[in-house]
Amino acid sequence: MQTIPGGVTAPIGFAAAGVFCGIKKRGKDLALIVSNRPAAVAGTLTVNRMRAPCVEWAQKILRKGRVRAIVANSGNANCCTGRRGVRDNRAMAEETAKLMGIPATEVLVASTGVIGQPLPMEQVRNGIRSARAQLKRTGSHSAAEAILTTDLRPKEFAVCWKTAGRVVTVGGIAKGSGMIAPHMATMLAFLTTDLTVEPALLREALKQAVPHTFNAITVDGEMSTNDMVLLMANGGAGLPPLKKNSPVYRDFLRVVREICETLAKEIVRDGEGVTRLFTVKVTGAASSTEAMRAARQIANSLLVKTMVAGRDPNWGRVAAAAGACGIPFKPERLMIRLGLLTVFKGGEPASVSRAAMLEQVDQPEIVMGVDLGRGKAEAKILSGDLTEEYVKINAKYTS
Amino acid sequence: MQTIPGGVTAPIGFAAAGVFCGIKKRGKDLALIVSNRPAAVAGTLTVNRMRAPCVEWAQKILRKGRVRAIVANSGNANCCTGRRGVRDNRAMAEETAKLMGIPATEVLVASTGVIGQPLPMEQVRNGIRSARAQLKRTGSHSAAEAILTTDLRPKEFAVCWKTAGRVVTVGGIAKGSGMIAPHMATMLAFLTTDLTVEPALLREALKQAVPHTFNAITVDGEMSTNDMVLLMANGGAGLPPLKKNSPVYRDFLRVVREICETLAKEIVRDGEGVTRLFTVKVTGAASSTEAMRAARQIANSLLVKTMVAGRDPNWGRVAAAAGACGIPFKPERLMIRLGLLTVFKGGEPASVSRAAMLEQVDQPEIVMGVDLGRGKAEAKILSGDLTEEYVKINAKYTS
Repeated sequence: MQTIPGGVTAPIGFAAAGVFCGIKKRGKDLALIVSNRPAAVAGTLTVNRMRAPCVEWAQKILRKGRVRAIVANSGNANCCTGRRGVRDNRAMAEETAKLMGIPATEVLVASTGVIGQPLPMEQVRNGIRSARAQLKRTGSHSAAEAILTTDLRPKEFAVCWKTAGRVVTVGGIAKGSGMIAPHMATMLAFLTTDLTVEPALLREALKQAVPHTFNAITVDGEMSTNDMVLLMANGGAGLPPLKKNSPVYRDFLRVVREICETLAKEIVRDGEGVTRLFTVKVTGAASSTEAMRAARQIANSLLVKTMVAGRDPNWGRVAAAAGACGIPFKPERLMIRLGLLTVFKGGEPASVSRAAMLEQVDQPEIVMGVDLGRGKAEAKILSGDLTEEYVKINAKYTS
Repeated sequence: MQTIPGGVTAPIGFAAAGVFCGIKKRGKDLALIVSNRPAAVAGTLTVNRMRAPCVEWAQKILRKGRVRAIVANSGNANCCTGRRGVRDNRAMAEETAKLMGIPATEVLVASTGVIGQPLPMEQVRNGIRSARAQLKRTGSHSAAEAILTTDLRPKEFAVCWKTAGRVVTVGGIAKGSGMIAPHMATMLAFLTTDLTVEPALLREALKQAVPHTFNAITVDGEMSTNDMVLLMANGGAGLPPLKKNSPVYRDFLRVVREICETLAKEIVRDGEGVTRLFTVKVTGAASSTEAMRAARQIANSLLVKTMVAGRDPNWGRVAAAAGACGIPFKPERLMIRLGLLTVFKGGEPASVSRAAMLEQVDQPEIVMGVDLGRGKAEAKILSGDLTEEYVKINAKYTS
């Protein structure tokens, strides 16, 4: 197995493009990803009640499980835009479908950006035409650029390996930035593969990967209206359909998870104003729901996030956040670790020097361990620090 | 009824002092409030699992319902400090009791500040002695100063009125700043009255006031380990014990609530980095728990808070936060208002000009209305904006 360039167009039979059409003030804002043959598809969608038309649209299409293209725009989420928003979303699918000579029901749409404003449809149509004209087998990078909003770096990753005498590939691109929290976020991720995989097995692969990757990160505790992770398989490598529990299937699961993990980490690293990453690892919980609840409370605590930004080993904030999440643990059984260092145990601060603690929080990636002393369940969340830059970005991001 | 100066020492028979003893680097850090006769007392304590020894101590004392004094320090929360912390807390009560010639069980202790570090007990003892020596009938202001941590302004309020030919008074002081969220926060509030009120009725008064005041504010969504609201009644005005449901009792409830409300608002106004206040009013909920859940999600949303800081009428963030809180409302029944202006209704953005929206978010105190269209319950939370200053303060606050 090896990491290769090429992102979402690394697998055989996929092409992509990213163009500027005028939704944003500058920078690419419209992406198109197509398969040269019908592809099976699966997806995970936001659970926010205020779902954008593109999410509703995706839900219908995903039931059928076959598509040819994804059209995505940044700069405008086309959410809370009423009947016009629903029409505009459909028009995006139809315009793409017309150019490709396929039914609109084989086109997925994704939008990210400001909520509550109508899409400038003339620009969007021009953008779709221009993206269609620029489709390339090496277009992943420009598509990855075109889905960014306030994030700074395109996020791409691909892995290939040999099986049954053929090279097979899985690749992906993602965008994140603000509104990144468990249960997705303003987060789009598109994955492709040239393996032949039925929709049911694709869904299974996402179900195994997403909870521990895209749903186990947080930037600001917000959940967006437009999130989606999509995974397309077009069979371009010419192998027979994957069988559940076959060795290739297990490799596929492993690679999908690795790609999701890499893209998810990139999302946090490129989160608004994020300068440093930290992982909250909760152990000793009575259930995994409980472990996740504690991990989220700590990972989203503003005081914990600012403490990471300030490289301050103020573990009392971790204790306070753990205590605030409504889990009836016994304080005398709580254990807190900064990196490898136990700093609180048995109801008492451990006798460790401030210098030793400072060393732990001075790592580029901090791990905070919290054991609740109640059971064997555990959970892990990756988070980023909170800096003045986050506030600057979000106080200025114009509606 | 009238507002008068004097805060916690405005009622007859109370004296207070605030001194510097060296727990903080500078500024007063130890406060003493005493009644010249035994006073009935009631309190509301943090529900954080990691409670400081002073909270555990208060819980015991409040069961008996009679005290003479509150000794409070800032700069160190004496929390997560193990057996030593428990001893130090008791020593604070004992030192105060010895100087006053009363049992230690008549002294409440409150601490606020950094977690996990031992109290410098020599300084604390000196501080208690010096505060005792400086007790004054006009000492409220200096006590209010001595309980501050990162908040900037002492918070005091008192109201008096005439009843049965006597003037009766209720007064209070508070501190807040960071870690302010529903279910208290790093929040201390001490109220006094010279009415004669049994502990059971005092508890009733707090129970009616706290949920709508101190528990209906948020600065950063954090809940502290040390919060308490205490209310002492010493009968100094010479009236017979208050009867439940009497006119004086109803006046008393009203005044306690007004004082809690005023102090709570001051806490948000003086929250870390807060420049502007906003109220989230949720209506149309199926239950008040549900209303409160939605109100908290919106009031604590970093994107909503930064939007207020930036005076940006980006109401889509309010919609996204409402949608993220797990309440199954129908998007087409959701209604969002900025001030008096309906901006989203029936699944569609209202046709209001950006100028009109800008005017609404340019008020010194913004009201955001969210109707869930599910029932008749409602809830209100007061919050402050999130600015770069909050991050600056909390990245630097040394452990």
